[in-house]
Amino acid sequence: MDPIERLSRIFERFPGIGPRQANRFVAYLLRSSPSLRRELVESVQQLGGSVHQCQECMRYHAGDSKLCNICSNPERDHEHLAIVASDTDLAALERSGTYRGQYFVLGGTISLASEKTSGLRIQQLLRTLPERQLGGLEEIILAFPANPEGDATAVRVREDIMVHAPDLRVTALGRGLSTGSELEYADPETLKNALDNRR
Amino acid sequence: MDPIERLSRIFERFPGIGPRQANRFVAYLLRSSPSLRRELVESVQQLGGSVHQCQECMRYHAGDSKLCNICSNPERDHEHLAIVASDTDLAALERSGTYRGQYFVLGGTISLASEKTSGLRIQQLLRTLPERQLGGLEEIILAFPANPEGDATAVRVREDIMVHAPDLRVTALGRGLSTGSELEYADPETLKNALDNRR
Amino acid sequence: MDPIERLSRIFERFPGIGPRQANRFVAYLLRSSPSLRRELVESVQQLGGSVHQCQECMRYHAGDSKLCNICSNPERDHEHLAIVASDTDLAALERSGTYRGQYFVLGGTISLASEKTSGLRIQQLLRTLPERQLGGLEEIILAFPANPEGDATAVRVREDIMVHAPDLRVTALGRGLSTGSELEYADPETLKNALDNRR
Amino acid sequence: MDPIERLSRIFERFPGIGPRQANRFVAYLLRSSPSLRRELVESVQQLGGSVHQCQECMRYHAGDSKLCNICSNPERDHEHLAIVASDTDLAALERSGTYRGQYFVLGGTISLASEKTSGLRIQQLLRTLPERQLGGLEEIILAFPANPEGDATAVRVREDIMVHAPDLRVTALGRGLSTGSELEYADPETLKNALDNRR
Repeated sequence: MDPIERLSRIFERFPGIGPRQANRFVAYLLRSSPSLRRELVESVQQLGGSVHQCQECMRYHAGDSKLCNICSNPERDHEHLAIVASDTDLAALERSGTYRGQYFVLGGTISLASEKTSGLRIQQLLRTLPERQLGGLEEIILAFPANPEGDATAVRVREDIMVHAPDLRVTALGRGLSTGSELEYADPETLKNALDNRR
Repeated sequence: MDPIERLSRIFERFPGIGPRQANRFVAYLLRSSPSLRRELVESVQQLGGSVHQCQECMRYHAGDSKLCNICSNPERDHEHLAIVASDTDLAALERSGTYRGQYFVLGGTISLASEKTSGLRIQQLLRTLPERQLGGLEEIILAFPANPEGDATAVRVREDIMVHAPDLRVTALGRGLSTGSELEYADPETLKNALDNRR
Repeated sequence: MDPIERLSRIFERFPGIGPRQANRFVAYLLRSSPSLRRELVESVQQLGGSVHQCQECMRYHAGDSKLCNICSNPERDHEHLAIVASDTDLAALERSGTYRGQYFVLGGTISLASEKTSGLRIQQLLRTLPERQLGGLEEIILAFPANPEGDATAVRVREDIMVHAPDLRVTALGRGLSTGSELEYADPETLKNALDNRR
Repeated sequence: MDPIERLSRIFERFPGIGPRQANRFVAYLLRSSPSLRRELVESVQQLGGSVHQCQECMRYHAGDSKLCNICSNPERDHEHLAIVASDTDLAALERSGTYRGQYFVLGGTISLASEKTSGLRIQQLLRTLPERQLGGLEEIILAFPANPEGDATAVRVREDIMVHAPDLRVTALGRGLSTGSELEYADPETLKNALDNRR
């Protein structure tokens, strides 16, 4: 296949990218300097070489160390463990700037179609709990998206934790009005949560 | 002025309506039957004649009674009073189906530009508190939009209540993830609230 | 029914208006002065009383005269007759500021589902052609929307005109790039038209 | 820099990509198989190695031949030459399926801010005209976007062609209603064009 066509097909597989934008990416690379293309090639190669999953939280991180910079940070507390679906959700919580505890990346949410938990690292999470409790763990925060998949995952993970570590406190992210919400446009469930969680 | 033009100008003043949609409204009325136009005329005339503000919650309601159907409903509790900015916000809370207490419509939120509270019925609210407390009032729920104006109004109303009725509990609608939110797209403040309000 | 509810139901029937915006319209009228409501009532009543269809072009116009201000304007030419689907399309052509001929409002386009031409004033149009030709008519411009319904209507009207007035020139609005179009985002048919109609 | 961060920064320079989507691209590559990353690397390397500009139309094409598959196609006519701003615009015209002539990629449009024509291959185009005329060229089609930049470029290129090859016919893509347009939403200039270009 024509290399222009071939590269375009690869970009089409990127999340959120259709054929037209894939073509624009190729056109951009054609127009740009050889050094940019070289940099892109090197960076992608580096990903394969030097990026590893952190042995604690399972997120991807750069470097040869077994632990990522959050898990190896001695200043973070070990009392809280936030379970997130993905690396991007972990990054979102970090950006919010308040959370100082540990993370565990589950690797997705339960698909409501299949109800399979196969891709998820639930067993792996459960196995780490005894040691984490020795290390001071007191509360697990289920930080899943506020949608049916996230809710189903929370129910399942909460049940499993209660069997394996019944003395842990398990919480979930608060529901209510998000910043900027007007009551008029809020859905009834959000208003119900906002009323229930008033403080 | 041409009656087509004249009516179009009136519709242009309706909230969210531009010249083009105003024209479409007029075209719709021209195409439709005389009975629809008559019904519209009668309904608007009725608004003026038979719609009054409820003497308790200050929302608009139909009929000649002094109280609206919520304030006159003996089955609603008098322990909770939700302060809302507008009739539409009151309607939104009612739709959510959980709240069974009383309401008070403040008439708006503080404008951050002017910081004026002139249009708002704060004094009127405060004057009713002694009697409401005699009637069993225990908690005031500040149900304002989750935006700077709503927050400023909440701060002000809370202060005033604390001066006039220091033994009342004053709460606000819970903040956090609204239904359907994904962590990735949530703003940092919402994530911070969701963490703080976890349960 | 409650007049608030009743008026809201009427506004819900307006084009493009859902229950929520209908409620906002009612709330707006409740908040506004009695004089605005009176003006609205009077304008709607006037529509019924003083708006008539022009006997020539069939559009709605104000006043008791048989002809609208376009059809009665002696400075407009009688060589061109633009057939449009609706009053709004007529208004759009007028806004463009170049057309100085006559109009005829057909009352819609052929529905592709039913292929019915029942609501359309095709026969009425055809009957006026002999007199219009005596008056100088040379060209009929089919000014229908550039969609399948508009195209089907154009085919049908063109055929009918060719039977009844074979010596008239029948044209259609030009197709091609609309202002602001980029080639990259134009559909193939538009590009084909733009190539065919290059000049 | 961290390779995750580094690659994300490169993707941020892609057209239309912000920091968030750049992160998602990296996350996608991290999740995907090593073979996909290898394919991406190879394809980008191939772009540098095997993609050249066609010596005739100046678009990028794969392979070592001097001419692209359009310019070397003996079945395409040499009477028409379409001047386009970019490779993507050329591809759009090809997709429309009617054009069978030659192309020339100008390399952009005149920026209205600077009015510079420096990046554009206008001189290079003009130099090829004598030979193209010997080869049968009769018409040059200015196929620029229907926006102020495209119009300014057309004016400039037309003037230059008229000086260097006054006997060539110079046309531009037709303007009018694009497929799907309704008159009600068309801008006045488009309607004016549609009237002027009626046929």
